[in-house]
Amino acid sequence: MKGNEAAAEGAIVGGCRYFFGYPITPQNEIPEYMAWHMPEVGGVYLQAESEVAAINMVFGAASTGARVMTSSSGPGISLMQEALSYIIGARVPCLIVNVCRGGPGLGNIGTSQSDYWLATRGAGHGDGRCITFAPATVQEQYDLCRESFEVAERYRHPVMVLSEAALGQMMEPVVVQPRGAAPAFDKPWAIGGRREGRERRVINSLYAQPPDLEQQNRELAELYEQVTREQKRWVEMGDDDPEVLIVAYGIPARCSETAMQQVGEKGIRTRLVRPISLFPFPFEPIRRWATVAPHTLVVEASIGQMVDDVRMAVGDQSQVHLLPILGGRITTPEEIAAEVQKVLGR
Amino acid sequence: MKGNEAAAEGAIVGGCRYFFGYPITPQNEIPEYMAWHMPEVGGVYLQAESEVAAINMVFGAASTGARVMTSSSGPGISLMQEALSYIIGARVPCLIVNVCRGGPGLGNIGTSQSDYWLATRGAGHGDGRCITFAPATVQEQYDLCRESFEVAERYRHPVMVLSEAALGQMMEPVVVQPRGAAPAFDKPWAIGGRREGRERRVINSLYAQPPDLEQQNRELAELYEQVTREQKRWVEMGDDDPEVLIVAYGIPARCSETAMQQVGEKGIRTRLVRPISLFPFPFEPIRRWATVAPHTLVVEASIGQMVDDVRMAVGDQSQVHLLPILGGRITTPEEIAAEVQKVLGR
Amino acid sequence: MKGNEAAAEGAIVGGCRYFFGYPITPQNEIPEYMAWHMPEVGGVYLQAESEVAAINMVFGAASTGARVMTSSSGPGISLMQEALSYIIGARVPCLIVNVCRGGPGLGNIGTSQSDYWLATRGAGHGDGRCITFAPATVQEQYDLCRESFEVAERYRHPVMVLSEAALGQMMEPVVVQPRGAAPAFDKPWAIGGRREGRERRVINSLYAQPPDLEQQNRELAELYEQVTREQKRWVEMGDDDPEVLIVAYGIPARCSETAMQQVGEKGIRTRLVRPISLFPFPFEPIRRWATVAPHTLVVEASIGQMVDDVRMAVGDQSQVHLLPILGGRITTPEEIAAEVQKVLGR
Amino acid sequence: MKGNEAAAEGAIVGGCRYFFGYPITPQNEIPEYMAWHMPEVGGVYLQAESEVAAINMVFGAASTGARVMTSSSGPGISLMQEALSYIIGARVPCLIVNVCRGGPGLGNIGTSQSDYWLATRGAGHGDGRCITFAPATVQEQYDLCRESFEVAERYRHPVMVLSEAALGQMMEPVVVQPRGAAPAFDKPWAIGGRREGRERRVINSLYAQPPDLEQQNRELAELYEQVTREQKRWVEMGDDDPEVLIVAYGIPARCSETAMQQVGEKGIRTRLVRPISLFPFPFEPIRRWATVAPHTLVVEASIGQMVDDVRMAVGDQSQVHLLPILGGRITTPEEIAAEVQKVLGR
Repeated sequence: MKGNEAAAEGAIVGGCRYFFGYPITPQNEIPEYMAWHMPEVGGVYLQAESEVAAINMVFGAASTGARVMTSSSGPGISLMQEALSYIIGARVPCLIVNVCRGGPGLGNIGTSQSDYWLATRGAGHGDGRCITFAPATVQEQYDLCRESFEVAERYRHPVMVLSEAALGQMMEPVVVQPRGAAPAFDKPWAIGGRREGRERRVINSLYAQPPDLEQQNRELAELYEQVTREQKRWVEMGDDDPEVLIVAYGIPARCSETAMQQVGEKGIRTRLVRPISLFPFPFEPIRRWATVAPHTLVVEASIGQMVDDVRMAVGDQSQVHLLPILGGRITTPEEIAAEVQKVLGR
Repeated sequence: MKGNEAAAEGAIVGGCRYFFGYPITPQNEIPEYMAWHMPEVGGVYLQAESEVAAINMVFGAASTGARVMTSSSGPGISLMQEALSYIIGARVPCLIVNVCRGGPGLGNIGTSQSDYWLATRGAGHGDGRCITFAPATVQEQYDLCRESFEVAERYRHPVMVLSEAALGQMMEPVVVQPRGAAPAFDKPWAIGGRREGRERRVINSLYAQPPDLEQQNRELAELYEQVTREQKRWVEMGDDDPEVLIVAYGIPARCSETAMQQVGEKGIRTRLVRPISLFPFPFEPIRRWATVAPHTLVVEASIGQMVDDVRMAVGDQSQVHLLPILGGRITTPEEIAAEVQKVLGR
Repeated sequence: MKGNEAAAEGAIVGGCRYFFGYPITPQNEIPEYMAWHMPEVGGVYLQAESEVAAINMVFGAASTGARVMTSSSGPGISLMQEALSYIIGARVPCLIVNVCRGGPGLGNIGTSQSDYWLATRGAGHGDGRCITFAPATVQEQYDLCRESFEVAERYRHPVMVLSEAALGQMMEPVVVQPRGAAPAFDKPWAIGGRREGRERRVINSLYAQPPDLEQQNRELAELYEQVTREQKRWVEMGDDDPEVLIVAYGIPARCSETAMQQVGEKGIRTRLVRPISLFPFPFEPIRRWATVAPHTLVVEASIGQMVDDVRMAVGDQSQVHLLPILGGRITTPEEIAAEVQKVLGR
Repeated sequence: MKGNEAAAEGAIVGGCRYFFGYPITPQNEIPEYMAWHMPEVGGVYLQAESEVAAINMVFGAASTGARVMTSSSGPGISLMQEALSYIIGARVPCLIVNVCRGGPGLGNIGTSQSDYWLATRGAGHGDGRCITFAPATVQEQYDLCRESFEVAERYRHPVMVLSEAALGQMMEPVVVQPRGAAPAFDKPWAIGGRREGRERRVINSLYAQPPDLEQQNRELAELYEQVTREQKRWVEMGDDDPEVLIVAYGIPARCSETAMQQVGEKGIRTRLVRPISLFPFPFEPIRRWATVAPHTLVVEASIGQMVDDVRMAVGDQSQVHLLPILGGRITTPEEIAAEVQKVLGR
């Protein structure tokens, strides 16, 4: 399966029954797949007038308790920031898939990780941030999209799957699961029209009185603490006494694995921590290995965004280096291996 | 002058001749002031169809070399994220004033600092970030808006003045400067229609070929390094041997000053670092005092955003605490003084 | 049933399975009804971002062969003019219900017939005009909405039901029919995604080459001639040797019936022709009675729009008078009776 | 001068100082000209986000008493219908130039007159209709655009100049007039901000109470009667005892002149009435000649729109024939001459 198709099929298997979106390369296989397959499960696919319209439709439909998603790439995700903040403020679960392309601006349609901040920090104005998962394989893209609705509903909060152009276009085998029935809509918070004998429900992000908003902000802060306790996901591998700790996610992490073998043959000991959850960020394993490795190398396809989280994790325990992959291109193991050697001065 | 009026008048004195915007509380005095006073200087005030339209008009007008601004608050700033990324990618100077209100979502119109990330990290998709200045007084609001065009043009990059609802509504005396003529349009990069014998100029954020985008990204990274060297601004005050380092900006910093006096009377030694530039962030003075003070207290009107930058600055030198001011309310010196004592356990 | 509900239920019974709209008084009971009842028949109700978005969704959905409708009132119908012209040019059947309110501009939400031209002449730019039916009772509103899809599909052309605010709000008994299954989508012209072994279908209103557009225009002209032959609908009643021919439709026609009784009691002979189809307009019966009656009185709730069609029908056979009902108010039989007497000078 | 340039320059000479528009072929030379020349007269040129935005900016700017215009072609004019109705309802003078292209829908960019109804009947919902002038030469295009502001202000009503693609692209010599100063803004009805001691002015199209709207409708009806008395414009030429009366405007009228010479050489007597004002329509001269000529031939570049007005004028006095020019192509004198002979059966 192509990565974008895996995202779409994973979401359907995960119970997604409403898709609203607007075309943008390099994620167009997702709406295309949804347009074909949503009717098979009794779902609705709708191409909206714009990304602004699409995300507001997500807001509305998801408010009924249905499993709803949209997908886009950088510019489209930017246009969704206002409504995304509303969705967070109104505590409505949904899935947003961002197949990241090169930026800023129109940039290009090459592969990139330059929306890390947009996902983990800039989920619109106010204090919201997306629960963000970043797959490194097509299988993982399938699985994370499938599981995201459970996570989103558990916390009544949007989940973003932050993918990359190369991952969306890549074909890999995927172990799929059968499509089942979507879960019932009637969440205890969901709106669904007048019901006799039921108290009135409202989905809203307006808290005009400061004490009400303070309460809401406090609950959100506590929610993020709970998310941080429960949803940290990462993979690690390599030597137990590393000279260099490599931190990378997605495609750069895959290239890093090969690079580790290459430098390993030269006697260089490395360890890789690959975050899968970007928010919450796996500070602890990075901190742990940073106390061992005198050097920490962050490899990311941006001018340096995740490196901030790594710096916070590492503190003064290890020297942090950054290998930025720019311009929408794919990195190579050789490039990473060379950087590891450069960091060590050998 | 009211803070919002000071922002508008400061911008006019700074050469602003085009204002495009859309109404949102608590910043409506800015467009109102512009509607009245722009004609006095031969400028154009235009209320657009939406924030999306307004920021795109800013993009277009500023591409001619004119000094152009918009202003809004949280939700409107979110809607501007896509075009803001285009403006950064196209390297067009302009001024955006964000009079921050409570969020996320509609939140309320109380005072807040919860758009710190949106300003410093989430300037749309891709690797852009706004050069961000945060005033703490009406005079500073006037001065920063006045100076921002020089900064923006120096780096061909947008500048955001991140203000707060309370600061926009507050009245304080302001030393004003005379309005002069706006500088000429004919910047060497500006577009302005066909000119005989001049090479063609294009303002664009599209770099379809990876090497071109890589070059553009690299230049942006270098620009940010230059900005970091040249534009860090902060104020510091207090004891030279602090037990607690307080980091705060804007209104919370002003409250912190009074709190420092209060705890000083009880023999507690504190020092305040008040960042004026949020990006670039004044890591060095914070680091310097963190090596002295065993405790660092961040006071900010959000659930914790600047605290990330402080953690990066402090590393393992001092224990970082956060006092979040939530709900759109104003903090008090007493609240901060109590937190200082709590941090010290006395 | 309320008139607006009758329109909605009639459309559902007529096979409508997709409703796209945007709220505007005095037709909001239609989308409200659709929101509740569309799910019962497996249909989709969607509130769009604007009327522009709604009618474009109608265009898209109806291109698949499904039965699709929208409803609005004056200002919203104006916003739909561009896409309506596209729909006509692309020959896509659909139903638009216009519950006419007072105009021009915002006007008021009173009852009116002032969109007669907009319906019969101004269906956007180019040479399109809507097939337009105007009900006078709630039952007729139900029946016309029910039958419109058959008419629309017969000619591959949009149908407008031009109702009035008063008719939308009025309650009258309605003989209803059972809801059946909606007809299959697979019209020979409908698009529906790739099918093996089927020629490619395109729905489009672009004819870049003049001969192609000329051919298209000619077919449209022939279609309108066919529609004119086959779809003229009217009701007539009254004396066979009238002194005054009354032409009125909708609510004013109902008031005219009572007025005819009133003046009949005074020995005045009148005949009423009530057009049900506004385009095609029933010229012949009006012409026929105009050769008998020396006076023709047009009663319409506008400053005079249908009167043009009546003038064309009447020619020099009878003197045409106009009683315009203005301001969004309902006329009375007394007002019409007085006008009849005034016309006759007695 | 090209016809489109003549329209733009004529408007500037006529005092136009604000242009808001959105690009569409075949009228793009108008905004292009305005973008270059508006700054020369201290005016503002602004390309809006859409035609909907452009016409609303026209509404706003013209409400201050300034002379404001927009231009577009069919699809764009359709999008302007809602706001146009508001402008009529609010009694705001302005100029709309429609350079008509082939329709319906996207149609093509060939020349056409198929927006006759849209201009004269379908000026949005409600009872509005544009005062509409149709030039036949580039000089007339210049003059009508120049004079339109006087007409618009005289009646506080929008004026439409209905041009044709061919006329917009055609080059002809034009006698130009010097640009003078634009007239002062301070019309007695215009809004312009708070003024000490002046009663509050409101520009609005909302008349919530039926008596208020009735009054407004009645004034509009009276205004149209006044316009009909004062603004009828036409040119006529040819034989005083015609066998065939030709009614045509714009380019088809010019072709008709040559056709009249051609059939004249064969001894056929014809007379041409060329309406310049389409609303108000010159019924009287047509009626007058129809009582002489047994045949009336309408030549228009549409499937038949003006023919309705001609039918109303002619009544039963003459047999009305239609030569429709379809597909966006230009007619030829030969085609018209042949039709004249066909009508006469010789």
